[in-house]
This record gives sequence, structure tokens and C-alpha cells, in this order.
Amino acid sequence: MVDQLDSGFPARHIGITDADRAHMLEALGLASLDELADRAVPANIRSSAPPELPAPITEQAALEALQGLAAMNNPMTAMIGLGYYGTVTPPVIRRNVVENPAWYTAYTPYQPEISQGRLEALLNFQTMISDLTGLPTAGASLLDEGTAVAEAILLARRQTKKGSVVVIDGDIFPQSLAVVQTRCRAMGIDIVVAEGSLVEALQTNEAFAVVVQTPGASGRVAPVSELREVADKAHENNALVVAACDLLALTVTEAVAEWGADVAVGSSQRFGVPLFFGGPHAGFISVRKGLERALPGRLVGVSKDADGAAAYRLALQTREQHIRREKATSNICTAQVLLAVCAAMYGVYHGPIGLTGIANTVHENARRLAASAKAAGLDLVHDSFFDTIQVSAPGKAAGIVEQARAQGVHLRLVDDDTVGVSVGEDAREEDLAAVCAAFGTTLGTDTHGDLAGQSRTTEFMTHPVFNTYHSETQMLRYLRTLADRDFALDRGMIPLGSCTMKLNAVAEMEAMTYPGFANLHPFAPPSDAEGYIALISSLEEWLASVTGYARVSIQPNAGSQGEFAGLLAIRAYHKANGDDQRTICLIPASAHGTNAASAHMAGMKVVVVKTATDGTVDMDDLDAKIEKHREELAAIMVTYPSTHGVYEERIVEVCDKIHEAGGQVYIDGANFNALLGLAQPGQFGGDVSHLNLHKTFCIPHGGGGPGVGPVAVGEHLAPYLPNHPLWDEAGPESGVGPVSAAPFGSAGIMSISWTYIAMMGASGLTQATLNAVLAANYIAKRLGEHYPVLYTGANDLVAHECILDLRGITKESGITVDDVAKRLIDYGFHAPTMSFPVSGTLMVEPTESESLAEIDRFCDAMIAIRQEIQQVVAGEWPADDNPLHNAPHTLARVTADEWDHPYSRTLAAYPAGRHIGPIAGSGQDKYWPAVARVEQAYGDRNLICSCPPIEAYAE
Amino acid sequence: MVDQLDSGFPARHIGITDADRAHMLEALGLASLDELADRAVPANIRSSAPPELPAPITEQAALEALQGLAAMNNPMTAMIGLGYYGTVTPPVIRRNVVENPAWYTAYTPYQPEISQGRLEALLNFQTMISDLTGLPTAGASLLDEGTAVAEAILLARRQTKKGSVVVIDGDIFPQSLAVVQTRCRAMGIDIVVAEGSLVEALQTNEAFAVVVQTPGASGRVAPVSELREVADKAHENNALVVAACDLLALTVTEAVAEWGADVAVGSSQRFGVPLFFGGPHAGFISVRKGLERALPGRLVGVSKDADGAAAYRLALQTREQHIRREKATSNICTAQVLLAVCAAMYGVYHGPIGLTGIANTVHENARRLAASAKAAGLDLVHDSFFDTIQVSAPGKAAGIVEQARAQGVHLRLVDDDTVGVSVGEDAREEDLAAVCAAFGTTLGTDTHGDLAGQSRTTEFMTHPVFNTYHSETQMLRYLRTLADRDFALDRGMIPLGSCTMKLNAVAEMEAMTYPGFANLHPFAPPSDAEGYIALISSLEEWLASVTGYARVSIQPNAGSQGEFAGLLAIRAYHKANGDDQRTICLIPASAHGTNAASAHMAGMKVVVVKTATDGTVDMDDLDAKIEKHREELAAIMVTYPSTHGVYEERIVEVCDKIHEAGGQVYIDGANFNALLGLAQPGQFGGDVSHLNLHKTFCIPHGGGGPGVGPVAVGEHLAPYLPNHPLWDEAGPESGVGPVSAAPFGSAGIMSISWTYIAMMGASGLTQATLNAVLAANYIAKRLGEHYPVLYTGANDLVAHECILDLRGITKESGITVDDVAKRLIDYGFHAPTMSFPVSGTLMVEPTESESLAEIDRFCDAMIAIRQEIQQVVAGEWPADDNPLHNAPHTLARVTADEWDHPYSRTLAAYPAGRHIGPIAGSGQDKYWPAVARVEQAYGDRNLICSCPPIEAYAE
Repeated sequence: MVDQLDSGFPARHIGITDADRAHMLEALGLASLDELADRAVPANIRSSAPPELPAPITEQAALEALQGLAAMNNPMTAMIGLGYYGTVTPPVIRRNVVENPAWYTAYTPYQPEISQGRLEALLNFQTMISDLTGLPTAGASLLDEGTAVAEAILLARRQTKKGSVVVIDGDIFPQSLAVVQTRCRAMGIDIVVAEGSLVEALQTNEAFAVVVQTPGASGRVAPVSELREVADKAHENNALVVAACDLLALTVTEAVAEWGADVAVGSSQRFGVPLFFGGPHAGFISVRKGLERALPGRLVGVSKDADGAAAYRLALQTREQHIRREKATSNICTAQVLLAVCAAMYGVYHGPIGLTGIANTVHENARRLAASAKAAGLDLVHDSFFDTIQVSAPGKAAGIVEQARAQGVHLRLVDDDTVGVSVGEDAREEDLAAVCAAFGTTLGTDTHGDLAGQSRTTEFMTHPVFNTYHSETQMLRYLRTLADRDFALDRGMIPLGSCTMKLNAVAEMEAMTYPGFANLHPFAPPSDAEGYIALISSLEEWLASVTGYARVSIQPNAGSQGEFAGLLAIRAYHKANGDDQRTICLIPASAHGTNAASAHMAGMKVVVVKTATDGTVDMDDLDAKIEKHREELAAIMVTYPSTHGVYEERIVEVCDKIHEAGGQVYIDGANFNALLGLAQPGQFGGDVSHLNLHKTFCIPHGGGGPGVGPVAVGEHLAPYLPNHPLWDEAGPESGVGPVSAAPFGSAGIMSISWTYIAMMGASGLTQATLNAVLAANYIAKRLGEHYPVLYTGANDLVAHECILDLRGITKESGITVDDVAKRLIDYGFHAPTMSFPVSGTLMVEPTESESLAEIDRFCDAMIAIRQEIQQVVAGEWPADDNPLHNAPHTLARVTADEWDHPYSRTLAAYPAGRHIGPIAGSGQDKYWPAVARVEQAYGDRNLICSCPPIEAYAE
Repeated sequence: MVDQLDSGFPARHIGITDADRAHMLEALGLASLDELADRAVPANIRSSAPPELPAPITEQAALEALQGLAAMNNPMTAMIGLGYYGTVTPPVIRRNVVENPAWYTAYTPYQPEISQGRLEALLNFQTMISDLTGLPTAGASLLDEGTAVAEAILLARRQTKKGSVVVIDGDIFPQSLAVVQTRCRAMGIDIVVAEGSLVEALQTNEAFAVVVQTPGASGRVAPVSELREVADKAHENNALVVAACDLLALTVTEAVAEWGADVAVGSSQRFGVPLFFGGPHAGFISVRKGLERALPGRLVGVSKDADGAAAYRLALQTREQHIRREKATSNICTAQVLLAVCAAMYGVYHGPIGLTGIANTVHENARRLAASAKAAGLDLVHDSFFDTIQVSAPGKAAGIVEQARAQGVHLRLVDDDTVGVSVGEDAREEDLAAVCAAFGTTLGTDTHGDLAGQSRTTEFMTHPVFNTYHSETQMLRYLRTLADRDFALDRGMIPLGSCTMKLNAVAEMEAMTYPGFANLHPFAPPSDAEGYIALISSLEEWLASVTGYARVSIQPNAGSQGEFAGLLAIRAYHKANGDDQRTICLIPASAHGTNAASAHMAGMKVVVVKTATDGTVDMDDLDAKIEKHREELAAIMVTYPSTHGVYEERIVEVCDKIHEAGGQVYIDGANFNALLGLAQPGQFGGDVSHLNLHKTFCIPHGGGGPGVGPVAVGEHLAPYLPNHPLWDEAGPESGVGPVSAAPFGSAGIMSISWTYIAMMGASGLTQATLNAVLAANYIAKRLGEHYPVLYTGANDLVAHECILDLRGITKESGITVDDVAKRLIDYGFHAPTMSFPVSGTLMVEPTESESLAEIDRFCDAMIAIRQEIQQVVAGEWPADDNPLHNAPHTLARVTADEWDHPYSRTLAAYPAGRHIGPIAGSGQDKYWPAVARVEQAYGDRNLICSCPPIEAYAE
């Protein structure tokens, strides 16, 4: 019996045709997808009915609906400020990065040989941040400014190991403060908000760090002398100085390193990234010498490849929580790569002169508004500012804001007596005139106010990359050149276990760049955000429906933040019940590294539960751990299906045991792509889950972000979801505070998941799940004869992914998972997940979007590689000179005049033949890695994290 | 003195920075761009003032203005029919083809080695057309359905050489008939429109062809028996049968070849190409065996490369008018490649089953409307139809149309008593309901009407290419694979003389896909097209201003059609003056081939004027020809600057001489990029010019179309501009009739040129011209030492391009222009124009958009090639085995296990080094040709113009 796909979009999203499915089912000895589900998925977790979702709609209808929603938003010209500013995305960057699948469908650059393009873009980002802040090492993006401030504080605490007090500038953005409060509350850090002098606050408090916002939320620019005094005082007390700063202001004001900041953080949004109702935007962090190894998040560095050529790759990866989770210093995993690339390219396109020009215009416009305000008889709160002024208008503030709004401009209502005005790059003369009209005057050419003598004295962005690509033609070619170095979903399968690299359909991607969605400020009045509110409400409802939970919050802007939010809810629940002592979090040995890091951040203690030999939770150990910690038991965090890629049979039993002991069950939704439509964690025992919209729900990985990690909870935990100080409807009043800077996190990309669900419907989503599971089992079946499949569940079936065990092969042949992964590049594939969750293995997840042809091509490649391994074992090739050991093979090598390997160039370069796909013409369609195997250790020993001089690339 | 670019968009469009310009001027011994203009451009043609244009606006402001214009159009759901139908462009095709610079910035595939991607796409188009019509050979697109019908008639006349009467179906689309009338009037062909039986009309007229529209404009589908009878009758009389047909209908009705059609024509618009207010859309033509060598327009064929691999290329190119203009059979040059690619990919994505499904739905919906109409008591004009019904509603037609419009649906007002309804793929249930409401009834499920027993009996689109890429993931990868085979402006310079491959900025390209512009039907009521009307009026006004003419019509949808329209105006003017005998058109020997073909089509006789040894018009010969033909002299057609790339000094004198003899002066605007802002042909002697918006005004070449060729005329010729029977405001009542099917030609892409002019302003446009001329002179200066520059003007300066004379080098070395052109591919360039206008030369046009770095890279490559030639001369390499003779070098060659050439692999593959661009990383960024040098003659001898079976590609 053959299953039939729903026609329309589901048949475009799912890559397996009806005929192919019949073949695959037959190979598995199954009659139908239903039978597959019955055999693979435990009966006691199966849903009795499909999730309640609206009937699926066509791509065309979805786009019309989204146009309607976008029209319900009124972005106007946003002059609200608070870390979000009007900007102009250069069209060449929008089309060729944000709207280009070569960029947005790429994965995190863990395989550096096939990621040199986006690694270069990120290195540009780091160099730009480092130059502008004056601090030598910058990371490759954080989630937003609020969490970046929090990360900086935690870094300072780790570094200083000194007390538990942090002093924070009273002029900090309110949402940053709130995010920091959420974090610090959980970690037991005390916050002193200095409403007056920071120096005084440092004198009266034994702080490990001070956070300075410059320019302040009020717009005030402090003189360098004042900032230096704060820094000196802090350093005197061995405290670190964190500067929350503004990239555009830094082009005309002094680099924060010059007055003594140790750490700089902020948002790169205003470098060409749309407002997006608050996100996604790339937060940044940079640090002084000596702190680089303490940086949270990812860091791109320069190393060399096996042929000695310069090569980029992620540096110091061993810091990442997924590798050394017990020592995790942050739960940051997914970053904001796509947005960091945009911001970096904005810097590349404008260059230092262009950026300074924009900053001068912005400043000049602010000074004109200041003069106009004064001419209207209004007082300024500060006379020193860059782009933001505050106007004192006792009793009239609301009226001014409303009048400006009527003219198409959003201002900031600071309080009843004060209006804030922030000038962005996008402000037009008519916008300035509208502001003046609201002040009761007209726009003149007079200016008032200054930069507090803060003029920048140091050069920045002097590297040629920022001084070359200033015509659109040059920029276009640079972007294409970088994109061409990378392997993304637009070239072939990326079978990454646990990462679910499925189709990111164009219809899903369209709406995010509609002006109605792209240009809305996160603190615009709710009545101007009705389209977003409606979209987000639907999405939260749909996600609740598919997970079986009562409530969902989409605020967490990465899976890690969803985990953190979920654990905070559990913590708050226990506290509310008087169970303050419940702080133990059980985590199986096979868990994602972020689990432990998040638990730590939520103020819990991690206790590891062993894994049995069959990969499941060791029930005896579980019992023992529960018994031992019964009174302190807060929760268990389990991933389901497990990270071993199987539907564990006893999950319901695990949940029952925990509940019986008074604990809560956190079911990590990383693998929800194997459950959607079949089972609901909120119904089979979970109290809370997070989802990864960039896995199951089609938000593209963007080369390493953005992600979105909604948290879903049962009714009893709903009062403890995140909320937001600047947006009442963003969460319950009793909530745990914000975990993201923006009320709705990465609101700008919610339309992607909304569209996916709207077009698939309940039936389409269930079909997607079943086909993903079918594909994984088909691969397990075909490859199982050649590589042992490590774990299987009931009836020898896997879930949506399978783990190939290479340990025996490595022992016998010396060929490692690395060798196989790199050799797969020669065959035209991105490697599967390496050595997670079990060292020495490869975890393969095909998803539902790949065609049988591509799946077979992958299996053929793996089988051919197995045969190559056998040739090494047989001694046909030496252990240190064979196609696996030398992989990947670059063009430079196979076109070199010399060739002295014991195998041919053809075998090296074209193990899978010269063509990819069934109907390639006579052309040569192979993807080539940009560099040979990258030496990781070399780069970590010689850490270089900004663009090297051109001479470094000399041939 | 250094010239400074206007800031903002001009500095993004123009690739030469202020510093680079100083360097280039210095190399030429010039102080400023002004001095360059003064020295190069004759004083007596210089404009006294810059053109009158609005002040330039920013990209952001332009996009806002375009959003405003788009909002002034009300596309609604278009159910008007007449050859234009609602369709759904699959988002994956829109984003990855229409919005992807790799596709739209490509040039016509004259260099097949670097064009295999789009050649495959066009071969798919041909195969699809051939399969659907049942006729074995299809061309690679014509301009629209109206001109395609005209081309088919001219083909039939050439082929039959029989009489001057053509019989045309009375049920033909009115705009097709009008276009045919314009053409036939000029060529002396008599049209008999058969309002009754075609067989009878064929009996009473000695026709060389009969044109059948099926389904008819009324929607009627004739039974096969009736069509066969017409065909038999025509063949009996040795006349050819032309079927104007509908691709979607052909999926469910009989292939036209089955009932005897010799030629099929039509539009491929409804295969996923937006309505665009009438264009651009790809017209199609296919023919029966024996007629393939008579096909007008381009034809893609399969040949093989130097290594024996299958390779695509343009077949039978020698037919093209630019090669053998005296024997030109059509003036078609630019085609509609980008749109043909879209239509072909729509076919690839849906496949035969999907297309049939869409057709069945459309037919079923039409049958439901028919039943509803009958239920409402309205009569149907025909009961046999595919997608279009006509409803008889005496006296009520206008009311029904208006009522439907009020509900968001455009119907066709056939006459006071008749309403036409055409169902497109995009029709929703609510649209059908709105139509029924206008009928005074409700939509039911009953059906009425049929296909006249026309069910299709033959298979179509059985090739795997149409049966493989049906998931979005597969489609995305197929599109990327093809794009990657091609070299377009997003990779590097395309220095094509006479073709002006400049930047196509994203801001210019954005608006065409806005729904307000994309989805409007060309015959929507003018009140629903106000945005387009405003945009087109501005554009026509601006073009008149920059050319110095009184009026402009943007209707001609290619340069060739602009020429035709301009010459028709001249002809009509002379006739109106009683000078019927003025039919002689003087054309210099160096002219573009289209000139002669267009003159022929306009009913003129061509007399060639010699070229003097310095490349200018031979004034003595001009005098002699004027004298000889004084009474019959209609016009001279001259290109200015001349096709030799120089500003001829005596142009004003030429114009005066012609005027004195009673002739009109046609100044071909192909090279207007060298005049814009400096001189106005309408002021220095021209009576008429056409422009190429895809050259000077930034419409991308699209891989060989769309183009737009507005015609600009003096006040005295304004009454003879094109007009249109279905749109009063499209031209003067006294006009010569339409030259394009749509009232405003390729309206859909006018926003591109509008945006360019709006963002550049008069000053920016003038700077663009001067920088283009500077770049050409810089190249002439650098390369002149290595290759003789054939022609120069005053002060040894060229205009915007220069001709490098290789004839001496070829004689000495045996190395041809072909060898140099193909070797340039190895250096990472598209070749310049080869052997036009002078055989054995290369014509180089850098445009203003290239940076000095790229220009120098090109010069360096040409100089290095010159040295390689010298090595051949010196005998270092044999004549038949050297890097030039063997160029281009494919990956297959340089990675082969064997290498037996007397030069190294490295020299073959990387003559310009391994990196392109100044800041390339360690990656390998070279572009590789998909095939080795293509054998042209082999393919012409063995003509294959549809997709070969897969086995043909077996390795």
C-alpha cells in the first residue's frame, strides 16, 4: 500500500514522492507509513487525534494573508531609540544575503573547509567590532544587547571571582536591565543600579563589575574624563568595566578601550539590519587582551590548512558547552550569524568614511531637532548627545508623542513630562519636520548640543576589506565570491543529526522583508503592531496545540534561551510552592550540552543520570538518583526522542517517577521533528518543553543563527513564563522577567514558522514527520550493513536520525570520523554530526525534504567510503597517504603540476563521478572545498581573530 | 584636478572612485572629465545645458515612490483573457531566477562555453514547446504572441513564395491582428479576416497561409475535425497553416501538429510569468520538419565540445541578421530569455501531470461558471471552451463587468451585450463567486460545456527533466546548478562592445515583482492602471528630455522593434507629404545588422554607404548616393557614436545633407551610453531615434532578453508613433498601429529605467557617460601598445568603446579572435564583442560601472595573452597545441590523470593566478567553463534542438 502526500505545498516540502515512498517502505518490509508509526513509536505516547490546526492553505493564499498582516502594522518612522534605530539595508545586501538561500540555508560553520565564505564574513564582523570598540578580540555575535550585557557580567564574575555585586549605570536601556535582573536573580548576583554617580556607587559597593551605557538611554553622552574616572575607580577595586555602546556613535566618539573599558557589548542592528519588531539582530561583545579565552559564544579565528594556506575556522571550540558542558560558562549556542553577516557587509559597503558620514548626518539632524525644541521653548534634559535628545515638556509629553504619531513618526514617551527622540539613518526631512510640528515649531537649520568633546581620536576599519567594495558591482561580486565558497542546502543534503536541515521554502521566507514586518520598532504602541500580535498569537496557539501544552511564549530567541526560560519557570513554581530547596536537575549523560549550562544558569545543580548500554536512560540509576535527591529534586531534562535517535519505550515511566518524587519534567524539543503530529510531550508527561523553530519549523539556520526557542508549559507553569517590562501583553504579570531584550524575541522571523504551519496543516505536518522517520530508517537499513547502527528502538527501528558507529572501524583501520566527514566533502556532501552524542560516531538525519535520489546518493557515498577504508585496511594505500586521510581534496591540489599520491587525481576529486544530479549537462557541477583540512590546534595556539593583512594571503 | 562623483546612488552605480579617476585621467594626460568631453565630443553636438530631470533621489526614496505607484494600480483578479491569464509564479522560481542576478545579469549566450546553464534552460523551453504543440523544432522565444503571429506569416511567405494574401481567423486576439496589420501594411501583404468559415475564405482567396487561433479569442474550442478540414484545404492550396495556440489548453487538447498545423505560435506567459501589464513575456514558435532553418529568432541546439562532450549552443547563428543582414528574414535580435527560462522552469517544476492538473482545474472552474451563467438565465456564445466563456447579456454587459470589478474581478467587456470570462490558475473560489454574483446568481458545483471532444491523445514532456525536480529542494538545487555554470555580471566584467553591460542595481530591480506591478492585466480599465500610466508618462518625458526629441513611445519591446517603429513613422510622414516614392534608406556599411532588416520590414530599400578608411562615413559616397537617390530618399540610419566607437566629427554635416535632400535622419541609439547628458540626437540633427533601455538604462540583459526599445521622434513625426486598438492613450489616433501586442510593450520592467533615472538625476547620468568614456579611453591607452586600436576620433580619443585590431596578429601568429576570446575565459572574463563591426577584431566596452581594479585586471589579462601569442610566434609552443588554441581549459582537463601539453596545468588553468579580487581568502575563486570549446559547425550539420536523452550524457 502506498501512502499519498497531500497535494499542494506538502508535496513540495516533502522530497519523497509517492513512488519513492513505496520503494523505501518495501526496503523496510513495511506496508505503510502508519505501520512504520505503529512499530516505531510507543503506543502510550501516541496522540489520539491530530493536532487542532486550521486547514492548510496554498502558498499564494499564505502570501496574501501575510500581506494582510503586514498591512495591520504601522511602522512609520521609528524615532523611539532604546537600542533600536531606523536604518537603511542596502538593497544589494538584502537581495544577495538576506534573500539568498546560499547564505540563509547554510549551517553553523563547524566544517570550516566548506564554510570559508561565511567565516570570512564573520571575521569581518569581528574586525569591525574590535576596531570600533578598540578592544582587540570580538566574538562572532551574541543574541541581542540585553543578553550580551548579561553575558558580560557573567564573564566579569568568572574572571574576577570577586563578590556578587554588579554596579549598573542608571541610564542603561530598561530592557537590558530587566534581562540582567532575570539572569542575576537566578545566579544570586546583586544588582546596584546607580541613579547618580557611578564612581560613588563603586565606592560604596564591593562590585566585581560596573556596566556603563554610552550614550545612555536618555541619549546623554558622558565626557571621556567622566568615563575614565569610572574605569579607574573600577580597576582600582579590581572590578571589570563593561561598556554597553553604540556602533554608529563609535565612529565619531572615542573608542571605549581608550577610556578603560575591558568589555564592550551592544547591538549591531543599526548597521543595516531591519528593526524587525525587536529581532533578530546580532549582539556583539569584544574584550581586552587577556580576556579572549573567557568570551562566551563563538569566535572565528585564522588558522592554516594541511597545505599551509591561511584558513578560517571557529576558534577555541572546546569552550563550547556542547563539548565541555560541565565547565560551560554560558549556554549560548546558536548565534545571529545571518544578521552579523548583514552588519559586517554594511560596514564593508560603507567603509569608515561612509559610516562616519552617516553618523555625522544623524548627529547633525539631532542637533537641528535640539535647536528647534529650544526655539519652541522646551528644555533639553542633556546638551551632550549623539543621536538622541530628551525634551522636557511638563504634562505635555503624551500629546507630543501622539501628534508626532499622527504625522507618521513614533517618539518615545519617557514619562508624563519627557519625550525622547532618536534620529536614525532613515530619518527624512519630513520626519524631522513632523517632530518639530509636534513640538509646536518648524524645522530650522540652527543646531544645538554636542558630543561632550568626545571626538574619536583613533582610526578604525583600516583593513582593505572595508575600503574596497564600495560600488554595488564590487559588493555584488564580493558577496557572490564568498557564497560560492560555501556548501549550503541549495547545493546538496546536509544530513546533520539533531540539527534538522530541512527545506526553507521561499514562500516561508518572503514576508520577513515586507516593510510592514521589517520596519516596526519593538516599542511602537501596540495599536500599531496588530499584525504582529495577531501572527504571534496564532503561532503560539498552534505551537501549544501541536505540543499539547497549555501556553507558549515565543520570546526566547534561541533554543538555549528557551531552556533557560523553561527551567526558570520550574524554579519559580517550586518556590511558589514553598519548595525553595528543589534545585537538583537530573540530566542523562547523553543530553545536549546546553541542558547542563542552562540548568546552571537557572540556579540549579546538575546531577547526571547514566545511560544504559542500549542508549536509554538507565532506570536503576534514575531510581537511585531520585531516591538520593528526592527532597531537592527540581526536574529532569530529557530529550525526546533521545539524542540517540530512538523513541525510548519507557519515557512515560520516567515522567511518572519524577512526578511521583515532586519533580517537574522538562522534555527538550530538539528532536520534535520526530514527534510532530504523532505525539505531544505536554500530554505524555512533560511539564515544559522548548522547541527549536530553526529545526522543526523551517526557520533557516542562517549559517549559525538566528534561531528561535519558544518555551511551552503546562497550565501550572504558565504564570512563570517570561514577560517584559515594556510590553504588558508579552507575558504574565507573575512572570520570571524577560529572557530576551525584545518583548517578542526574534519577532521578525515568526512569519516563517507561521507560514510553514499554515501551508502544511495537521495532516501535512504529520506526513512530514513520518517521511523524516522513514528516510532515517531507510538510511539505517542501507548503511547498517556497512556501519553498525549504534542504537535502535522497538522493532529495530530508529526515530528521525541514526548513529553510525565508527569506533570499531577506526580501531581496525586508523580512519577516523574526521576522515570520513572530510572525505564526504569530496563526494559532494556536508558531513553528518560528528562525535555527538557518542564520540567516534556519525549521527545522520536526512529530514523529510530530501528526495530518494539524494538519500541514495548519500548512502552510495558512505558505502563507497567504506570500501575505501577497506583498501586502507588491506594495505593498498598507506595509512598516512590515502584519499581519506588527505580529504578533502581542493582544486589547488588536483590541478597542481605535481601529483605524488598512490591514488589518482580522478579518484581524489571525483569519487562520485563528475556530475551531481540525474540530468546534469556536460558541465562540471561538483562543489569544491575552499581549503584543505584545517588545523584546529594551530589556530588555537596562535589566536588571530581579526582580518589578517593581505600579505598573509600572498601565494 | 580630480572630478568628484555625486554622493548617494551615483557613487554606487559608477565603479570608478575619485582617486582612481585621477589616476586614469593622468594616464591619458587629461586634467578633468570636462577636458575629456571637450576633446572627445565634437563641439557642434554638445548640449548647452544638462537635460531637464527632477533632482536625484535616494534608493530608499525611490523604493517608497515605487511602492506608492504600485498602490495606484488595482490588479484585482484578472479574468479578461485575450492571451493574458492569471498565473502563479512558484516562489522558488521568482526568488532564484527573476530576483537572482546570476540569471538576470547574464548576456546573450553567444559564448556557449560559459553559458551552458541558461542554454539548458532554453533547451528545456524548446522541448516543452515542441512537445506541447507536437511540432519538432521550437525556437528559444520571440517577443510576444502578436509579433510571433506576424513572424509566422512572414516565414510562411518566404517559404511558399506564393502570393500576398494571408487568411486570418476572425476569432484571433484583436491585438495580434493589429500587430499583423501593422507589419503586413508595410510589407504589402493583404489580410483577409475570415469572420465565417476559414475553409470558405481559403476557397475564395489564393492565400500563402492561414492563421487559426485555438482556442479563439471568444474562448471557442473548434473540433479537431473542423481544424483538420482547414489544414487540409490550406495544404491543398500549398499554403501553410499557422496555429496561434495556448500552452495550458494544449495539455488537455490535441497537439496542433495532429490536425495539420505547420507552425505554432503563442505566448508562454501563463506558465508562471506575471501579467506585468502586458509584458515582458516570452512568445514561442515551433515548426514542422523542413521549416527549422526558416525559423526567425534564436534557436538553441546540441553540439559537442573539443573533447567530444555534449554541449549546447545557439544553432544556425549564421541566419541571424547581425551576420548576414542582406539576407535577413526577420529583425528579431533580443529575445525574451529570462521569461522563457521562467516558463520552462514552471514546466520543469510542475511536470506534465502537474500541468494537466492545473488545466483540468481551470477547465472545471470555467464549466462551473458556464453552468452558473445558464442557471442565471444567460446564454453562452459557445458551449465548447477550455478556460474562457462568453456570456450573452443584452444591454447588461457593462453592468456585469462593473459589478464584478466592485468585487475585485476584472472581466472582459466584449461589447454592450457580451461579457468574456477567462479562468486563470490564480482564480479563487471567492473570485468565481464574485463572477456569479455579477451574473445575478451563486456559484454552484454544476458544470456545463466541454472541449469539443478535443482530448489530447499524445504524450508530452516525457523527458526526465520534466519529471524529476518536483520538490522545492530539488528545484532550488537544479536552478543553482544551472546558474553556477554561467558567467554573468555577478562574477566579473563583461566588456561587450555595443552591448553596455553595466550594473543592474537591486533598487532598480525591486519594483517589478511588487504585486501592484506584477499582476495587472494589460486590458484592465485605465482607472485601475494609474500607477503604471504615471510611471510610463514620466519615463517617456524623461527620455524625451535626455534625447532632445518631442515625443517618446515606450511600446516597442526590443531595440529592433523601436527601429521598425521609427522607420514606419518616417514612411508615414513621407506618405502624408505625398512622397510615397521615398523608400530608399541609406545605411553605412558598419551599421548593426538589424538596421537593414528593419528597413526591409518597413517596406524600404536599403542602399549601403561606404565607410572611409578611418571608419567614418565616406562623405563622397554619401554625396553620390544622395545624388543618385535624391527623389526616392526616405532616410539615413546612422549609429552615433558610430559602431566603430568614435564620435564622428561630421555627423551634423551628414544630417544637413540628408535634410537638404528631403530625407529624414534616423540616429540609432545603440550607443547612447556615450551621449547621455552630453549631446541630444534630437537636437543635433536626428528626426528619430530608438534607445535600448537594456543597454543605457539598466534593464538587465536577462541572458538574452527582455529588452525595451523606445522610439523617440521630433514633433513632425509624433503623429506617426505606434498606437493600440485596445488602449486609446497608448499612441496618437493617426499612429501606425501597434508594433507590440501590449499597449505599453514590456511595461512590467519600465520601473527599472525609471528608478535609474530618478536616482541618478541629470548630473549623475552625465557623470556616468563621462566615466564610461574615460574607462574606454584608459583601456585603449593601456592596450593600444599591445593591440592596434582600429579607430579613434578627435585627439586620438575613442567614445565609450574601442576596437582592438587582431588581424595583423592573426596573420603573423595564426591566433584568432576566437582563440583570444576563449583564452579570456581562463583569465576569468567574458570575451568582448567578436568580429563586429569589423571581422578579425574585438570590441571592448567597459561601461562606467567597473572599478579601476577590474579594468586593470582585464588589461593585464589582455597583455598577458599578447605575450602568450608571442610565445606561439616564437615557436615555443606548436600552433595546434598551445594555451590559446586549446582554450578554454575545463576542470575535466586540468584535473585529468593525463596531461600531455607542452605547457603546465597551472599555466592552463590559472594564468591570472588562483584568486580573483584583492581580498580573496585562501579559497579558490576562479570561474570554470562548463565545457571546452564548442564545435559550431557540427551542431548545425546535426541539428538537435530539444533535450537529448540522458544516455547522451553518459560519461
